[in-house]
Amino acid sequence: MRNTRLLNALNMQEVDSTPVWVMRQAGRYLPEYRKIRSEVKDFMTLCKTPDLACEVTVQPLKRFDLDAAILFSDILTIPEAMGLDLAFVSGEGPVFASTVRSQRDVEQLGCPDPNDELGYVMDAIQHVKHELNNSVPLIGFSGSPWTLATYMVEGRGSKQFAEIRKMLYSSPEILHNLLEKLAQSVTHYLKAQIDVGVDVVMLFDSWGGVLTPQTYQAFSLQYMTQIISSIKAYSDVPIILFTKGGGLWLNEIVGAGSQGVGIDWTIPMKQAKKIIGDRACIQGNLDPAVLYGSVTQIEMEVQRILQEFGSGNGHIFNLGHGIYPDVDPDNVSAMISAIRKFSCKK
Amino acid sequence: MRNTRLLNALNMQEVDSTPVWVMRQAGRYLPEYRKIRSEVKDFMTLCKTPDLACEVTVQPLKRFDLDAAILFSDILTIPEAMGLDLAFVSGEGPVFASTVRSQRDVEQLGCPDPNDELGYVMDAIQHVKHELNNSVPLIGFSGSPWTLATYMVEGRGSKQFAEIRKMLYSSPEILHNLLEKLAQSVTHYLKAQIDVGVDVVMLFDSWGGVLTPQTYQAFSLQYMTQIISSIKAYSDVPIILFTKGGGLWLNEIVGAGSQGVGIDWTIPMKQAKKIIGDRACIQGNLDPAVLYGSVTQIEMEVQRILQEFGSGNGHIFNLGHGIYPDVDPDNVSAMISAIRKFSCKK
Repeated sequence: MRNTRLLNALNMQEVDSTPVWVMRQAGRYLPEYRKIRSEVKDFMTLCKTPDLACEVTVQPLKRFDLDAAILFSDILTIPEAMGLDLAFVSGEGPVFASTVRSQRDVEQLGCPDPNDELGYVMDAIQHVKHELNNSVPLIGFSGSPWTLATYMVEGRGSKQFAEIRKMLYSSPEILHNLLEKLAQSVTHYLKAQIDVGVDVVMLFDSWGGVLTPQTYQAFSLQYMTQIISSIKAYSDVPIILFTKGGGLWLNEIVGAGSQGVGIDWTIPMKQAKKIIGDRACIQGNLDPAVLYGSVTQIEMEVQRILQEFGSGNGHIFNLGHGIYPDVDPDNVSAMISAIRKFSCKK
Repeated sequence: MRNTRLLNALNMQEVDSTPVWVMRQAGRYLPEYRKIRSEVKDFMTLCKTPDLACEVTVQPLKRFDLDAAILFSDILTIPEAMGLDLAFVSGEGPVFASTVRSQRDVEQLGCPDPNDELGYVMDAIQHVKHELNNSVPLIGFSGSPWTLATYMVEGRGSKQFAEIRKMLYSSPEILHNLLEKLAQSVTHYLKAQIDVGVDVVMLFDSWGGVLTPQTYQAFSLQYMTQIISSIKAYSDVPIILFTKGGGLWLNEIVGAGSQGVGIDWTIPMKQAKKIIGDRACIQGNLDPAVLYGSVTQIEMEVQRILQEFGSGNGHIFNLGHGIYPDVDPDNVSAMISAIRKFSCKK
């Protein structure tokens, strides 16, 4: 690997500049992405066509000085491979044709074979690895069991997640059965991604933050801890765990054992560093909306985060959530230049 | 006042049982509310008809052993009184016919006269005070400037609040002008509510939690601090400040000077108590979804929160957010019985 900044940071080793990548860096804010997207029928077709998924994965690397690629895909590949019909409805996001709410619904779900139903993901990874030719590491990923379950139980994105939280308190054993099945599927899926060459894996727990401290532990973190243990026993590929809205539970999150921990923008980097210490590499923290600001503001915010992190190893620069689709790509360049300018050797 | 538990708790004085009320206790989960609601054209008509607003305000007091009433109204009364056309669209929530995005848009907004455009709220308060006849205290309220601004800039509810966060970073001075105008309007509105007899006021900062620590301070907390100072200089009526998703910033929130601080369910009560100490009364913390559970589960969660709060004064039992519309009212009774059973004299 020619660029080892990301892997060094995850191994708590010295780097010549803080590594940076951007959540959803392959996406709608790039005109070259929108061009490819306009030529396919729907979003999932793009995910399922390995040469196109590969092309959009490497687009941001051609434009920006990034330290990692992340596979262009979606967290809902697993529920779809389990047999739920998925559609992306304009203005509404993902919608499943049916929901999972009873024990019978859970029993009817299979654990997808990552090399069969999800074989298109493995094909795309192999294309990307070939294309990248060891220039930068490739990040593979999965949604967390809890986050996948929210879409499967609600049937779509949600603000309050009333249905799954109702299930959590009224039929906890059914939800645990679903989460157990998802944890197994996610483990197989990430192992298969590792088998075909991803250099890092990331668990996106986008909706863990809607839980209480106790139910987060029992219904989300417990299953992610299982997955992390399995992956660590299987390979040396490092794992990053990101629970959006998990700032109050960072101490417990670090305890799950991942090499990297993602944080959103609601927690000061200084406080995250104080809690996590040298136990894991910290990734994230920039408010994605900062990229709507001026170059001066972007530089100030980049500098603030770097200073709050301070000296020491184990820092990956990133946004606290996916980049917004109407951001000017030039502001991503400005952010990366600021990181190169202000991050000292550490 | 015959029932002084709420006021005593807010004054950090001893009570014979932890006082309890429920956010949105007058609302859709009650069949008697749904009956009244079905007889009027729309939601705002209910808010604007003082005898009906009074009737639904006192409905939960007739059914449950509650320690306070809260005026049936909406946080969007102020933007509507400023001249924005408000409609409640089924399945989507509040929608404004126009948005506030430019300096010109802000300049065209007036500060509403609470006794003129908002006179219907003052009429409703007088009706309720007469009806309650000093049995329990009446809570008045307002949305926070930041929270009101989110609806005015976005034009509707939002998940990501991209428009207002874009304004925050790209045109901060316009947003400050809007927030300044809202802070003045909220101050006048709450003072007028106090003039006609409310016993407590509450500031709902429902969307402060989407900000960063720095922008929360500058664009939400700063304005709430101004409002709290004005109210405290004006009267002895205690104020409760609630920022949903503000658990990481409780130390700063207490610094705003309100007598009560609301918390949601993402922070352990024990941790909130440790941060807040005796500086303010703590309200909230029960996950509203617990009311979907069994009576045994409800009792366990009530007991857990009471135990985590521990001994000492200054505790108001409440949910961490509004009650969900499909909750069984009997589970509210179960929650209140558990509070009476497990809260010791303190």
